Amino acid sequence: MKLMIDIKSYFETNRNEILRQYFDFLRIPSISTGKTHSEECRQAASFVLERLKAMNCDTARLIETDGNPLVFGELNRNSTFPTVLIYGHYDVMPADITDGWNTDPFEPVLSDGVVFARGAEDNKGQVFFLLKTVEYLVENERLNCNIKWMIEGEEECGSSSLWAFLDSDADALRADICLVCDTDMIDIDTPAIVTSLRGAAIWDITVQGPRQDLHSGLYGGAVVNPVKELVRVLGSLFSTDGKVLLPGFYDEVRQYTPEERIEITQQPFDEEEIKKIAEVESLGGEVGFSALERIVIRPTLEITGISGGYTDEGLKAIVPSYAKAKVFARLVMDQNPSKIKDSLVQYFQKNLTKGVQFECEKEIGLSGYVCNTDSRFFTHMNEVSKQIFGKTPAQIREGGSIPVVAAFKEKLGMDSLLMGFGLRTDNIHGPNEHFSLENMVKGMETIAAFFQQI
Amino acid sequence: MKLMIDIKSYFETNRNEILRQYFDFLRIPSISTGKTHSEECRQAASFVLERLKAMNCDTARLIETDGNPLVFGELNRNSTFPTVLIYGHYDVMPADITDGWNTDPFEPVLSDGVVFARGAEDNKGQVFFLLKTVEYLVENERLNCNIKWMIEGEEECGSSSLWAFLDSDADALRADICLVCDTDMIDIDTPAIVTSLRGAAIWDITVQGPRQDLHSGLYGGAVVNPVKELVRVLGSLFSTDGKVLLPGFYDEVRQYTPEERIEITQQPFDEEEIKKIAEVESLGGEVGFSALERIVIRPTLEITGISGGYTDEGLKAIVPSYAKAKVFARLVMDQNPSKIKDSLVQYFQKNLTKGVQFECEKEIGLSGYVCNTDSRFFTHMNEVSKQIFGKTPAQIREGGSIPVVAAFKEKLGMDSLLMGFGLRTDNIHGPNEHFSLENMVKGMETIAAFFQQI
Repeated sequence: MKLMIDIKSYFETNRNEILRQYFDFLRIPSISTGKTHSEECRQAASFVLERLKAMNCDTARLIETDGNPLVFGELNRNSTFPTVLIYGHYDVMPADITDGWNTDPFEPVLSDGVVFARGAEDNKGQVFFLLKTVEYLVENERLNCNIKWMIEGEEECGSSSLWAFLDSDADALRADICLVCDTDMIDIDTPAIVTSLRGAAIWDITVQGPRQDLHSGLYGGAVVNPVKELVRVLGSLFSTDGKVLLPGFYDEVRQYTPEERIEITQQPFDEEEIKKIAEVESLGGEVGFSALERIVIRPTLEITGISGGYTDEGLKAIVPSYAKAKVFARLVMDQNPSKIKDSLVQYFQKNLTKGVQFECEKEIGLSGYVCNTDSRFFTHMNEVSKQIFGKTPAQIREGGSIPVVAAFKEKLGMDSLLMGFGLRTDNIHGPNEHFSLENMVKGMETIAAFFQQI
Repeated sequence: MKLMIDIKSYFETNRNEILRQYFDFLRIPSISTGKTHSEECRQAASFVLERLKAMNCDTARLIETDGNPLVFGELNRNSTFPTVLIYGHYDVMPADITDGWNTDPFEPVLSDGVVFARGAEDNKGQVFFLLKTVEYLVENERLNCNIKWMIEGEEECGSSSLWAFLDSDADALRADICLVCDTDMIDIDTPAIVTSLRGAAIWDITVQGPRQDLHSGLYGGAVVNPVKELVRVLGSLFSTDGKVLLPGFYDEVRQYTPEERIEITQQPFDEEEIKKIAEVESLGGEVGFSALERIVIRPTLEITGISGGYTDEGLKAIVPSYAKAKVFARLVMDQNPSKIKDSLVQYFQKNLTKGVQFECEKEIGLSGYVCNTDSRFFTHMNEVSKQIFGKTPAQIREGGSIPVVAAFKEKLGMDSLLMGFGLRTDNIHGPNEHFSLENMVKGMETIAAFFQQI
């Protein structure tokens, strides 16, 4: 396996220059939330663009959007080769030294082979080693696939510019497989591949009552209170044993065999740790399923926000004018977000009393995603993993969503390989985020082998 | 009836001086909401104090509080005479000319016998004519009762200083009857006396979930969502036909005979007007009762505010940390706010799932109030009304609460007479509030006769 030694040596030989570039990338506070760092986001986009140019991409350009630019690139090697889309993001979560950082989050520090900085892992660190890996393969003429790059700058705040681009230009991203390095390994010796994600559907619902808040002494009891109506009808969607009572909600939920359910228990999961993090005495959820199953293979219907009337100090004797809620469904295969929405709307229209109006707006509606484990790319990644780690990756089902992955599947029929090289302990999104150079090199070795032997 | 002519003549003879004083009072922007007008509130209190001194009160002083001062006075005539407590307030609602006023709300304008200004009626106008009436009776040695004055400065924002005073010094206000002129007539020829008020109980309830918002992709489905729990349990308190399902809620509600219910229909009430004001197509409420009954003799349990999680633009994939709601009960005779609270707490504790904590704090808990229509003072007011208007006052049940009235009853066993001389069309709390001098004189005539012949 000459290549493995090669890229490790390449890293060691060029360590100073690689770290210099990596640190330059991390120093840019490309925070996408709140739109106060647009200039810095553009700088980070330019950094990525420069790396694409440095590897002699056939196309390398910023795509302007209403928000932060998208970085798009193409390396066309041979039309008979498979094409891989690499998706990642250059934006980071907010970070301030007062949040509990030991050092300035935007002044990277290398300590015992670990780099501390916002974005050290998520996702600048992983995007960076992908850039360096492909650069290395190009230089050494060992890249045996075509590559497209889509590195966006709003992943941490909803990806709205990428959505807009997908609506008009999805075809530009068409490839045989999408590679996403934005997830974790089990530990440094055990890679992991995420084989399923839940979908996400969010609906903003509003119950409208009187035109304006009315005095409850004069009108309370006769003018219908929209907060009460929202609570009454929304509350009736949930059983005491954690089931969702919306008609049809479970109709298309994929059922798992006893064997599959046993297999799921193999996935690392620590119920006590979750209780500790949440600081709660008990977990809850749907009767008949384990906590892990509730998170990864069962759908939930949650209320992630609700508001109406007046809840501050003191009293306001009102019949409130309106109430609204954000209903957030984590969907699984093979639930259809549109059908669930239709059922929700019908349910409210049927059950709300006269005297209020109902509105439901979709914010997002994405199906769940299950990786095609029969694909040649999945098999190939297993083979590569065996070479590098001596074992195939653990297969992990996640409860979260990576919206673009579901969108790629829906719009382009394109599968994704979700194989990242972080660790759960890297504290992404929190203070003192970090990424070990050992993980970085493992990532480079694995991805280099994947692209070379593809 | 020499006296009636007397006070009318007194008004006409001294019209300029009376209006000068009245306008001086109205010019003080004694807005109590928001605490930005403390100095002006003190000026208004001093104005009242000066009038008490001018009528040679035996006691006349400001009682300092954490908020605006209370004005307290005593006119001791004869220990064999009955004692009347006059309760009113010198503070006003906020007003700004940009809210739709035709003239400066704090520069009174007299137009066709009607005074336009904030507080022209509520409650400065009515307090002012009470001051002038008693002053007149004292000057002419026709006051045949002892009088206590309690004119507060926070009625429009919760009366918290008066509450504190009642906790420590309620006895100072002990009297045979309390007179409150803060309500309306049916029309200029038809006085009205409010014979019942609903009570008010407000509870702040909180359902606490995880210590902080958690990522719903990682925890959603297993960590209990407190917003969902609050909505589920709170929602189960309401039936589809407008009944409150809280155990025991209706147990002590006073039942009315068919005759009494027919009598209630005599009260002026315009259902279409309410729909128009609320801009709703239908009214709602408890099955089996008319809209008016729902407002004046039936209790309601309302949610006047609810909040939890995130409801602004865009998505936040969270298991929210907590949810809270303000539950506002309009109570009727003979419901007991403490018992209702106990039932509410028990209901939540029994029905909430494990994994969340529940808290319930009382903000206020006042019983309903029904006027003792057999009292000598009620009979006396009817007699006086016949003299002045040729008829007894209409008896009106109101859906609102005047908290101090219930508190006087609870703490001192003291009844109140709620007989005011405004009109529903005076637009109190709104722009272009006004009060007709004709109403003012009717009020002076009635109250003068009441105090002289008592």
